[in-house]
Amino acid sequence: MLSLESYLKSFEEFLSTNAKFPTAPQNLYEPCDYLLNLGGKRIRPIVCMMSNEAFGPLSTNAMYAACAIELFHNFTLIHDDIMDAAPLRRNKETVHQKYGLTAGILSGDVMNIWAYKCVEQIEDQYLAKVLRVFNKTAVEVCEGQQLDMDFEKRFDVTIPEYIHMIALKTSVLVAAGFQIGALLNNASEQDAALMYEFGKNLGIAFQLKDDYLDTFGTSNKIGKQIGGDIISNKKTYLAIKALEVANEAQKAQLTTLADETNQETKVAATIELFKTLHIDTVTMNEIEHYNKIAMDALEAISLPKENKQAFYQLAQYLLHRDK
Amino acid sequence: MLSLESYLKSFEEFLSTNAKFPTAPQNLYEPCDYLLNLGGKRIRPIVCMMSNEAFGPLSTNAMYAACAIELFHNFTLIHDDIMDAAPLRRNKETVHQKYGLTAGILSGDVMNIWAYKCVEQIEDQYLAKVLRVFNKTAVEVCEGQQLDMDFEKRFDVTIPEYIHMIALKTSVLVAAGFQIGALLNNASEQDAALMYEFGKNLGIAFQLKDDYLDTFGTSNKIGKQIGGDIISNKKTYLAIKALEVANEAQKAQLTTLADETNQETKVAATIELFKTLHIDTVTMNEIEHYNKIAMDALEAISLPKENKQAFYQLAQYLLHRDK
Repeated sequence: MLSLESYLKSFEEFLSTNAKFPTAPQNLYEPCDYLLNLGGKRIRPIVCMMSNEAFGPLSTNAMYAACAIELFHNFTLIHDDIMDAAPLRRNKETVHQKYGLTAGILSGDVMNIWAYKCVEQIEDQYLAKVLRVFNKTAVEVCEGQQLDMDFEKRFDVTIPEYIHMIALKTSVLVAAGFQIGALLNNASEQDAALMYEFGKNLGIAFQLKDDYLDTFGTSNKIGKQIGGDIISNKKTYLAIKALEVANEAQKAQLTTLADETNQETKVAATIELFKTLHIDTVTMNEIEHYNKIAMDALEAISLPKENKQAFYQLAQYLLHRDK
Repeated sequence: MLSLESYLKSFEEFLSTNAKFPTAPQNLYEPCDYLLNLGGKRIRPIVCMMSNEAFGPLSTNAMYAACAIELFHNFTLIHDDIMDAAPLRRNKETVHQKYGLTAGILSGDVMNIWAYKCVEQIEDQYLAKVLRVFNKTAVEVCEGQQLDMDFEKRFDVTIPEYIHMIALKTSVLVAAGFQIGALLNNASEQDAALMYEFGKNLGIAFQLKDDYLDTFGTSNKIGKQIGGDIISNKKTYLAIKALEVANEAQKAQLTTLADETNQETKVAATIELFKTLHIDTVTMNEIEHYNKIAMDALEAISLPKENKQAFYQLAQYLLHRDK
């Protein structure tokens, strides 16, 4: 089995030793520490470490890159929570909720810069390459967040647009983690690009599985109410696909259900309609489609099979979950 | 005379050609263009170009560094305006006022990253050095903004604390411009550090002159109402110094004046009290003090006198202004 825990442990140790925030000004850095210590699975830095280790011994360069990626991710969480007016994250108060709007903005800003302070620790021979991947990805994540907000106000979002948005908003940073990890152990450009493709498509499949489980999961397994996306009329893959394949009568029904105030009725009726439209199967097929692209990329990487084992297991872990 | 205009022209040309934002997503990049096109004196990029040119022919590396510095500065303006709830900048609507809070946050974020995309264009041999200076400075600017906000709630801010805050908030980015420009034409570490000292102390003197002019300037020259800082009880160098040197009766008078609702009375009486306390002279002496440190640093730089001429003129231009 994969030992995600041991990667997690090494990462936390490195982060708390080598990317520690100063103590002053307290109002600037305390919110940063608060958010970082809310935990999280640290998937992004871990894939960077795993990818690095597949091509050689885990390097300090990769540890700094992993920190940069995690700090960047956490910075986006702080600012996204402000933009979404979210009061809670991981069942705790969000940064702006706890410390106020200005603290949220400025702490996010300094955490973004702190990510670049981790990048600067990478040895000169790799620095330009990593900085370029990092910048490109960081811009894409912002663009993804913008598209997500734009889509909230649109009713004609297509499936390709949706996939593009989730790829930018969530997958490219995972993909960059894989790519940078590989580059930092002198993987060929081609292998690094394949690691990127693997990560990007795995990330898309993962996000689609998230959409699937919110509607078709088992509530006691996913640990939250089934149908949250339906209740909030969220434009998930499922909702967009349903509108795409529905006939006129079914479209009208979906529109009516969007305004239904009885949540139980709303969820049950929408799920039933989704099933009639085979949205569950279509979504699972789409997940399989992106999983296949990911697996093909992994297959093509010029590493011995045993070095890829961890990635197959990771994909299994992420996609065959039922929660 | 200095030809700031010709630097400005070259900079604007380079910026609009080489650091142009994409057109989509429009809601992300339009606010960036809007702010950048509000203009401004572009002092920070210009000093980077000037410093670079003092050590050799103006290089493309320096142009990218100049863009990075200006974009970073503009990013901080967008976010500072949100934190200050400012409706106007340069007599135009601020970004968040025109486009909303989320646009302000996200456009600022992407502009910050775009600054790093300019840094990445710098040739490998200089990249690590520039990135380190840039990161250090960027963190300091955030810390300066935090201190500024912290000071608003404190009544015991000392002069050294105030100088430290304005140095971080405004001077270090100017100083970094000078330093990076020099580094990018292979100036020695010592000369680059002296350019930094020159810029930092010139920046402090400049900010103190700003404080001075707001109270002791001539309103038709500075183009805004005299006493704006007094009316808003801003903790400027003048206000902090006055509290420091005032006797008990004068302190009580200052406290009473802070609550005075008649603005004309408030400004006139405060200015009179400041004059009694010789705050005008003390402030001018402090400006001269930092100007002297700047000039000593400039003097010590191992460049022929004619290569420094532009910097003496710049200092004259910035400090001997009456508006």
